[in-house]
Amino acid sequence: MNVGIVGATGYGGAELIRLINHHPYATVSAVYSTTQDGAALSESYPHMLDMNSLVLQAFDAKHAGATCDVVFLATPPGVSSKLSPSLLAENVKVIDLSGDLRLKNPDDYEVWYKKKPADESLLSEAVYGLTEWTGEAVKKARLIANPGCYPTAVLLGLLPLLKAGLIEPDSLLIDAKSGTSGAGRSASAIAHFPEMNDNFKIYKVNQHQHTPEIEQMLSTVTDKLTPITFSTHLVPMTRGIMATMYGKLTVGTQAEDLRAAYEQSYHSAPFVRLRPEGQFPSTKEVYGSNFCDIGFTLDQRTNRVTIVSVIDNLVKGAAGQAIHNLNVLAGFEETAGLQMVPVYP
Amino acid sequence: MNVGIVGATGYGGAELIRLINHHPYATVSAVYSTTQDGAALSESYPHMLDMNSLVLQAFDAKHAGATCDVVFLATPPGVSSKLSPSLLAENVKVIDLSGDLRLKNPDDYEVWYKKKPADESLLSEAVYGLTEWTGEAVKKARLIANPGCYPTAVLLGLLPLLKAGLIEPDSLLIDAKSGTSGAGRSASAIAHFPEMNDNFKIYKVNQHQHTPEIEQMLSTVTDKLTPITFSTHLVPMTRGIMATMYGKLTVGTQAEDLRAAYEQSYHSAPFVRLRPEGQFPSTKEVYGSNFCDIGFTLDQRTNRVTIVSVIDNLVKGAAGQAIHNLNVLAGFEETAGLQMVPVYP
Amino acid sequence: MNVGIVGATGYGGAELIRLINHHPYATVSAVYSTTQDGAALSESYPHMLDMNSLVLQAFDAKHAGATCDVVFLATPPGVSSKLSPSLLAENVKVIDLSGDLRLKNPDDYEVWYKKKPADESLLSEAVYGLTEWTGEAVKKARLIANPGCYPTAVLLGLLPLLKAGLIEPDSLLIDAKSGTSGAGRSASAIAHFPEMNDNFKIYKVNQHQHTPEIEQMLSTVTDKLTPITFSTHLVPMTRGIMATMYGKLTVGTQAEDLRAAYEQSYHSAPFVRLRPEGQFPSTKEVYGSNFCDIGFTLDQRTNRVTIVSVIDNLVKGAAGQAIHNLNVLAGFEETAGLQMVPVYP
Amino acid sequence: MNVGIVGATGYGGAELIRLINHHPYATVSAVYSTTQDGAALSESYPHMLDMNSLVLQAFDAKHAGATCDVVFLATPPGVSSKLSPSLLAENVKVIDLSGDLRLKNPDDYEVWYKKKPADESLLSEAVYGLTEWTGEAVKKARLIANPGCYPTAVLLGLLPLLKAGLIEPDSLLIDAKSGTSGAGRSASAIAHFPEMNDNFKIYKVNQHQHTPEIEQMLSTVTDKLTPITFSTHLVPMTRGIMATMYGKLTVGTQAEDLRAAYEQSYHSAPFVRLRPEGQFPSTKEVYGSNFCDIGFTLDQRTNRVTIVSVIDNLVKGAAGQAIHNLNVLAGFEETAGLQMVPVYP
Repeated sequence: MNVGIVGATGYGGAELIRLINHHPYATVSAVYSTTQDGAALSESYPHMLDMNSLVLQAFDAKHAGATCDVVFLATPPGVSSKLSPSLLAENVKVIDLSGDLRLKNPDDYEVWYKKKPADESLLSEAVYGLTEWTGEAVKKARLIANPGCYPTAVLLGLLPLLKAGLIEPDSLLIDAKSGTSGAGRSASAIAHFPEMNDNFKIYKVNQHQHTPEIEQMLSTVTDKLTPITFSTHLVPMTRGIMATMYGKLTVGTQAEDLRAAYEQSYHSAPFVRLRPEGQFPSTKEVYGSNFCDIGFTLDQRTNRVTIVSVIDNLVKGAAGQAIHNLNVLAGFEETAGLQMVPVYP
Repeated sequence: MNVGIVGATGYGGAELIRLINHHPYATVSAVYSTTQDGAALSESYPHMLDMNSLVLQAFDAKHAGATCDVVFLATPPGVSSKLSPSLLAENVKVIDLSGDLRLKNPDDYEVWYKKKPADESLLSEAVYGLTEWTGEAVKKARLIANPGCYPTAVLLGLLPLLKAGLIEPDSLLIDAKSGTSGAGRSASAIAHFPEMNDNFKIYKVNQHQHTPEIEQMLSTVTDKLTPITFSTHLVPMTRGIMATMYGKLTVGTQAEDLRAAYEQSYHSAPFVRLRPEGQFPSTKEVYGSNFCDIGFTLDQRTNRVTIVSVIDNLVKGAAGQAIHNLNVLAGFEETAGLQMVPVYP
Repeated sequence: MNVGIVGATGYGGAELIRLINHHPYATVSAVYSTTQDGAALSESYPHMLDMNSLVLQAFDAKHAGATCDVVFLATPPGVSSKLSPSLLAENVKVIDLSGDLRLKNPDDYEVWYKKKPADESLLSEAVYGLTEWTGEAVKKARLIANPGCYPTAVLLGLLPLLKAGLIEPDSLLIDAKSGTSGAGRSASAIAHFPEMNDNFKIYKVNQHQHTPEIEQMLSTVTDKLTPITFSTHLVPMTRGIMATMYGKLTVGTQAEDLRAAYEQSYHSAPFVRLRPEGQFPSTKEVYGSNFCDIGFTLDQRTNRVTIVSVIDNLVKGAAGQAIHNLNVLAGFEETAGLQMVPVYP
Repeated sequence: MNVGIVGATGYGGAELIRLINHHPYATVSAVYSTTQDGAALSESYPHMLDMNSLVLQAFDAKHAGATCDVVFLATPPGVSSKLSPSLLAENVKVIDLSGDLRLKNPDDYEVWYKKKPADESLLSEAVYGLTEWTGEAVKKARLIANPGCYPTAVLLGLLPLLKAGLIEPDSLLIDAKSGTSGAGRSASAIAHFPEMNDNFKIYKVNQHQHTPEIEQMLSTVTDKLTPITFSTHLVPMTRGIMATMYGKLTVGTQAEDLRAAYEQSYHSAPFVRLRPEGQFPSTKEVYGSNFCDIGFTLDQRTNRVTIVSVIDNLVKGAAGQAIHNLNVLAGFEETAGLQMVPVYP
C-alpha cells in the first residue's frame, strides 16, 4: 500500500515516516511540503540520512491520486478542510491528523479554534478515529479525523467508566500534562529551551481546543454529561502525556467494577495496557510506542476515583494512532508496524 | 543572632545556610550532622567553598544551648520529636522543618507517617508557622512547626477563598506537581536521572502525608470541610512546586470577589504576589526566591475556579519560610535576608 | 535462534530484550538475574508489560546450555570472567557486554579496573567485537568481547584516519560526553536527578577504564601511537555519547583524503553514516538506533581536524552492537533487527 | 550611583537588574528597549513583579546623560559601537556587554563577526574588562568592553599557566560546553525545547567569534601563541559553561608549579576558587553566582595538564562581571552586590 504525507517536515509527519519504515505492508511514496519543495527529507531531518531517498514536493492532488492509496494530513489548522475534498475526489482515502474534522458541530470549531470551520458535508462524512471505540466505522471510512493527543489519553481512560455508569458525569475533572513536542516544530517563546527547562507551566486554562472534542466523544456514552474542567500543562520533557483524572463514584461502585469495565472495553485492544490497582504508569514507560497505559485507584475517604492515563503524544496521540487507523481501514492486522517496545530509559 | 542547623548536609539545611549568608542579622554558629562529624561543610557542598569555614559536628544540646539562640531542625521524620525537648530545655528556640510537629492529632501522624508521633505536650506547644496566617502566634512561640512544601503552596492559594466562603469546601481538588529536590539528597530509584529525565510520574496517590496537614489548616477557616483529593506528581526539574487547584464557586461568586479575598488576605504580605486574572505563574518565575505567586480564573461553563500557586519548594516551601518565621519571632523586618529576585531564566 | 541474557534487569539487558523483540530470527528464551529470581521481568520494567512473559531466574550454566544457543552477559565487572567458561563448556556461545574480556593484557585490566583480570586463555580466545573492523574474526568466534560505549564512538571515528596515516598518532585528544544511562540502573549520588539536572560534570579525569581499550585497538592500525588524552563528561540527558576528537594532520592531508578514508572503511558498513563536511550530528539524531554518525572538518588555522562521532550508548554502544555481532556470528544479514529509525525528536 | 541598562529585555539585561537589586550602592534609574517602549519591565519578566516599577523606554542619550552615571549596553552585535560615542559625549561611562569593542584589530571583527567594526578610536579607548587581569586599567576607564562568556572561563583558567611558562602555547586545545541561555532570549531552532532536550550539540566548529578574543588576551602573556583550537557545544541546561582545556607541560613542570601559578594570580581575587588537585567543579556549583571555579590535574602518561573552568555564563560570563567592573571603576569594594552563594541544587 502506498501512502503520502502532507506536512512531512512537522513532527507528526516525521513520526509517520519513522513508523511506516517499520510497517510490513505500507510504503511512503510521496512527501509533500509547501515550504521545502525540492529538498531531500534528510535535510530537514538528518536522523533519516541514508534511510530513505524521499524528496519533498509541493502538494498536488492529482499527483497524490496517481501515487497514493491513502494520504495522511499532518497540517496546521485550516488546511485539511481545504485539501481533503480534492483528495477524496481522486479516490484517495484521507487520514487527517489535524483538528479540522473532529468536531461535528461547526460552531464549536469556530468558538474553540477561532477559525472558519470545514463544510458540514465534510464534517459529517469524517469518522472520528479513536480506533478502540470507533473501529467499526473506521473500517468503512474514506475520511478519518484522527483524534487529538490529549483526547486520546483522556477518552481511553474515561469512556469505559462512564459507559458503565460507574462515575458521575458532572464530577469529571481532568488535569493533563504534556511534553513540549505537542507544540510542534516551529520555534516559539513558550518552548524556548532556557525558559522551558527546569520549569513547569500551565497554559490555555479553560481554553484548550481539545475540550469540545473530549466532550463530544464522552457524550456518546452518557447523556448526563455537563461541561468538563480540562487543564493543560507543559512539562520540561519532549514526549509524553499524562492525564490525571478524577470523578465521583456512583453509589455502590467498587474497585472490581472499575477493573471489569476496563477489561470489558479493552480485552481485545492491543494497545491499551491496564496496570494492577494502585500502580501507575509514568510517561516514559510508553515512550516511542503506541501504548496507552492506564492505572487507577479508589479513595475511600473521598469516594473519588483517580485515573491516570499515559501516551506518547507523537505516537498513540498522533502518528501511531493514524497508522492503527490505516491498519483497520486497510484490513491489516491492527498491530502491523506498531509493536515497538517502549524506549526505556 | 546566632543560629544552629541540625541536618546541615540535606537540601533544607544547605538552603538555610545559603539564605542566612545573605541575612543582615543572623549568623550560622553551628552545623550539626550525625554522619559527617568533623568534616568541613564544603566537602559535602563544594559550591560553598571559601564562603564559610563551618565544620560539621555531632549534635549536642548543651553545645547548641551555649552557642545558638535558635536552632533549625532539617531532619528526617522521627528526629525532631526527640531533639526539640532538649533544645527547649536549654532555652533555645526551635524551628522544625520536618513534619513531626505539624499535626495536632497524633493519630493522624501515625496513620499518614507510619511512625510513632511526638508527645502531645510538644504537639500542643508547637505553632504551625504558615507566617502569613499564623504570624501572631509565631511572634510568641518557642517551638515552630514549619509547614510542608506542598501545604505552603496549597494553603496560600486556598485559604483566602475558603475563609471568604467563595468556594464549596466539599468540592476541593488539588493536583500538585513538584521538582525532585523535595525527595531529598539521598540517591533513590525514583530520582535516578536516567529514569526521571524526560519523564513525568505520579506518586503516593491518595497517600501523601501532607494531606492531613492541609486539611487541618483549611479547617481553621471553614467548618464544612470534607476530605480533600490531593495528588502529587514528580516533574523532571530540580526546584519548584505548582499546585493546580479546583473548586466549585458558591452561589453568586464573581471574579472580583476572589480578587478582593486575596487582596484582603495578602495586602501586607511581602512574599505573596497575585497575578492579573487569567495570567498564571510558572515555577521558574519564583526560582530561588521566597515568593508564592498565585493566579486564578473563573470558568463560566463549569462554575469552577482554577487556582494556580507556585513556590520554590526549598525556599518558600522550606528554608525561606523558616527564616521568615525567624524574622517574625525575633522581631526583625519580615523580609530580612529574603529579598532575592528569582533566578530567571 | 534462542538467546539468554544474564543481568537482564540492568539497562544493557533491558535494551537487548527490546531489540530482540524486533529481531526476525532470534528469541529470548531465558533471562537470568541473581537478585530477582522468580520475578516477572515486567515487575522490574513495567514498560514491557504484556509484551513478553519472561520470568527471571538465577543463572545456571546447565539450564543455559539446554535452552540457549547464545548467551549475552550484561553483568558488572568481574562476573563474566567467571561465567564465560561454564557457558563455553556447555557449547553456548557468549557475547560479553562487560569490560572483563576486552583487554588482552591482564595487567592493563588490573591497573584500570582495580580488579583481578580473567584468565589469559579466556582473554586470548575472546574476539573484540567492533564489528566494522573485526567482523571476520567475529564470524568464527565462540566468545566475543563487545566493545565499551566510549570506545565504540571513538574508534569508529579515528581508525580510518589513523590507518590511512592522515593524522599524527601522538597528537590525539578525545573529549567525550555521555548521557547518564551509561552509569547503570543503580541509584547513585552522581546521577541523582536534583544534582545532575541542569548541570554538567567531568569525571574520572585521566582514569577512565576505557582508555586502554581505545589504545589497544588504535595500535592495531598504527605503530606510532603514544598514550592518548581521553576525558569523559556527564551530560544531563539519558542516552547518547558524543566524542569530539582532535588530531594534527600529517603533511599534505586534504579534506578529500579524510573523506576517502572514511568511505573506504565504511562503504559497506550499514550503521556508520558520514555527514557532509562541515555538518555535524547531534546525539539525538541517533537516539534509540544502532547508527554511529560521524562529522568532521579541517581547520586551516591550526592544521587540526575535528572529528565528531555520536552513538546511542545503550544501542550502538552496547546492546545493538551485541546483536550486530550476533548477526555476524550466526550468518544473519548484518541489519537483522537493527533497522530502527532514530526516535527524533 | 545611578545606572541605566540598554537592552533590558534580553537575558543579560534582566540579570543586571537582578544583581543590582542586591547592590548596596547602585540603583537602576532607567531601562531602555527599542521594541517595548512604554511597557512595564514585569510584563516582559513576570518574575520581577512587585520588585521594581521600571518602565521601558526608547533609548535616548540625553535622557541617559541626565539620569545615569553609568550605562550598561546589553545589546546585539553592531549596536554598541553606535551608542557608545553618544553616551561618552554625555559624560556617561559605558560598560558594554556585547562583542563590539573587544577586538583591538578591526579586521578580526570583520572576519569573525561578519559585520562592520567600530571606529578605531573607540576600539582603542575601550578597556577589556577581565577584572582579575585588567583591573588597574578598568579603574581609570570610561568605556569597558566586558568579556564574552566563553573567554571569561577560558582565560581565567589559562592565563596563569601561560604567563608562568608552564604549558606550551602551541599545544592549547579548548573544548567548551555551554548552557543554552548564551544563545539569548529569542526563540530559535537550535534552542527549541523538543530538539535541545535530551540532546547534545556541537556548533560553530572552528568559527566561534570568541576565538580571536581569547587569542588576543592570551597573547598579552606569551609571545609564542599560535592559533588555538576552540570548540563549542550546547548542553541541555539553562546556565553554565565548562571549558575543558588541555596543554602540553613545559619541561620540568610539576603539579605544585601549576598550583603556585594559580595562587599567585588569584590570591586576592574574590571570585576565583581553586579546587584541590584532582577535584573538579561542575557547572551547577557556581549557578547564579559570580564565581569561576577551577580544577586541574596532570597526566603523567601524556605529560598534559587538564584544566576545568566553570562559570555561570549570565553572571561571571556577563552581568556579574559587568558589575564587578562597575565596582572597580567606581571604587566600591570588589564584591559589592556579588556575594551570592550559588543556588545548589
